[in-house]
Amino acid sequence: MRDDPTDVPPWSAPALNRRVVLDRRPAGIPVVEDFRIEQAPVPALPEGRFLVRNIYLSVDPAQRGWASSEANYSEPVPLGSPMRALAVGVVVQSRHRSVREGEFLYGWFGWQDYAVADPDMIVMRARLPLPLSSFAGLVGINGLTAHLALTDLGRPRQDETLLVTTAAGAVGSIAGQIGRILGCRTIGVTGGDAKVELCLQRFGYDHAVNYRTADLPRAVAELAPDGVDILFDNTGGDMLDMLVRRMATRGRVIQCGTASVASWTPPPTGLRNEREVLTRRLTWSGFVIFDHRDRFEQSASVLADWYLSGRINVEVDITSGIEHAPGALAEIYAGKNLGKKLIYIGEAA
Amino acid sequence: MRDDPTDVPPWSAPALNRRVVLDRRPAGIPVVEDFRIEQAPVPALPEGRFLVRNIYLSVDPAQRGWASSEANYSEPVPLGSPMRALAVGVVVQSRHRSVREGEFLYGWFGWQDYAVADPDMIVMRARLPLPLSSFAGLVGINGLTAHLALTDLGRPRQDETLLVTTAAGAVGSIAGQIGRILGCRTIGVTGGDAKVELCLQRFGYDHAVNYRTADLPRAVAELAPDGVDILFDNTGGDMLDMLVRRMATRGRVIQCGTASVASWTPPPTGLRNEREVLTRRLTWSGFVIFDHRDRFEQSASVLADWYLSGRINVEVDITSGIEHAPGALAEIYAGKNLGKKLIYIGEAA
Repeated sequence: MRDDPTDVPPWSAPALNRRVVLDRRPAGIPVVEDFRIEQAPVPALPEGRFLVRNIYLSVDPAQRGWASSEANYSEPVPLGSPMRALAVGVVVQSRHRSVREGEFLYGWFGWQDYAVADPDMIVMRARLPLPLSSFAGLVGINGLTAHLALTDLGRPRQDETLLVTTAAGAVGSIAGQIGRILGCRTIGVTGGDAKVELCLQRFGYDHAVNYRTADLPRAVAELAPDGVDILFDNTGGDMLDMLVRRMATRGRVIQCGTASVASWTPPPTGLRNEREVLTRRLTWSGFVIFDHRDRFEQSASVLADWYLSGRINVEVDITSGIEHAPGALAEIYAGKNLGKKLIYIGEAA
Repeated sequence: MRDDPTDVPPWSAPALNRRVVLDRRPAGIPVVEDFRIEQAPVPALPEGRFLVRNIYLSVDPAQRGWASSEANYSEPVPLGSPMRALAVGVVVQSRHRSVREGEFLYGWFGWQDYAVADPDMIVMRARLPLPLSSFAGLVGINGLTAHLALTDLGRPRQDETLLVTTAAGAVGSIAGQIGRILGCRTIGVTGGDAKVELCLQRFGYDHAVNYRTADLPRAVAELAPDGVDILFDNTGGDMLDMLVRRMATRGRVIQCGTASVASWTPPPTGLRNEREVLTRRLTWSGFVIFDHRDRFEQSASVLADWYLSGRINVEVDITSGIEHAPGALAEIYAGKNLGKKLIYIGEAA
């Protein structure tokens, strides 16, 4: 069974379900006031469903888009509903023949104690011999994104230069380490001296730059005099514009996030980049992990091997208590987390 | 020999060489005042070189970039030198064993009557059974760009929607026709009702829109309700921003030119597009034809077959007299040409 049984909560007595509900449509980055916490009875379990007791609630930058009413790759979370979220939980009751009680799952279980779930909501069964929190980070959408986006869209080759923004974050820290495993020189761009140290000491970047204090264009020009071959970008905005102008000919820009753009309403403006795309022959591509479900198991297995053989380090920033969920998105957008942000709610409800 | 011998000038008596010289660095789009025409003796021919008498001078939007001092994919044309240009000419004297007198060539012969050339300056030998002007258009860099950019970066599939900007231009008109040959629904965007007619009647577009008079976002939304799969863009600027917001998921944006952006100094701004790249999973790529020299012959052969079998129509806008070259770039940027713009200088100098 699992190697960390202390993660398992006392699930024998489902009682009230605490839910972090979307209370109003966020203006830009979701803040604590956009949510309310309410309690409701755990619903009766219909045939064909199973009941998940959440243990780790995932906090992901992408949730901002899910909560927004703007055009996106997913339907907006309805107001008054539990916030859409990934979570790692354990099956405490099952009326579905393919899901057994006691099984650990990673899936669309929301920011709440209990989810009445069906198999479509499972992203991955937590079967690999890894710490339970890894399923919401290393082999969750963060690590899967780092791996598949970098390899599919970045097409890294030996001795190329990879630059990663939000380099110490849940996706960036893994992208940088995979780039290094695949033979790239890696440059991490992050906000803060502690994160620079984390990048160098834990995530194995060859170089790391604190964009808050450094002259970033100059630093990148010095660290990558022949240009950046692969830009793994999670920030967008002015930093992206600057980095696009440091790309090598035939460089690849992977757009994985737009964390630095506080709001898309009204539509923000910036430097025109089409001439850079043309003259540098860039390939600038967008990546959404949910397009690649059929490859999750295989990618997770590769990531687990790298982790278990000591080639990838993982930092997890865990806060205990569901009451911390509403403010957690604003915190990660402010860069206050060190590594993958999780809310632990394994304590008795 | 050639099927249009009237194109051949009386080359027996090389006399003075008229040259269109870059006189000052253009501010944005080159205008007539940026050039001067000067006369100089035809230089003596050193061993290992050959003398080309130009017949057609090519007028290409890319020349704006070559004349600019800004970072580019090529060195800026030095002030006081003949304007860098492609041309079709005939070898009137040869001191190189691999080039024979009477041979027709397409190459880097500049805006001038005569060029002292070496084989590196040849882009293609004009050997296919085509009108001589075709070598500066259909199978010159315009047609080659249309073919290779569309197939390499656009990866067109049956029944996809291809939208082409500058749809009646030298590159766009061929790109649209190739898209149609490859099974795409094609939408041409162009400036003017005469060009709309040209798009529909001569270039076989399924639809054509005059962006000067139409509500373009609305027209494209109606013509491509499921979005544009391939955007072949030669304009950049606000039109590009608008069209990016009409792309289908996993659409491809081919950046072939930035004709609508009048100046890159100071750097112009526009809508941020990174969120569109991400959420629509676009692939936005830049194309420069000179990266693909090893495929010119093969591509030209395919284009010639399509032309000779009546599947591609070509419009050529020919003005006679070298004195028209200095103003020709401003004219094509203003959209005054119908099809590929050439300056004929085959008359006796």
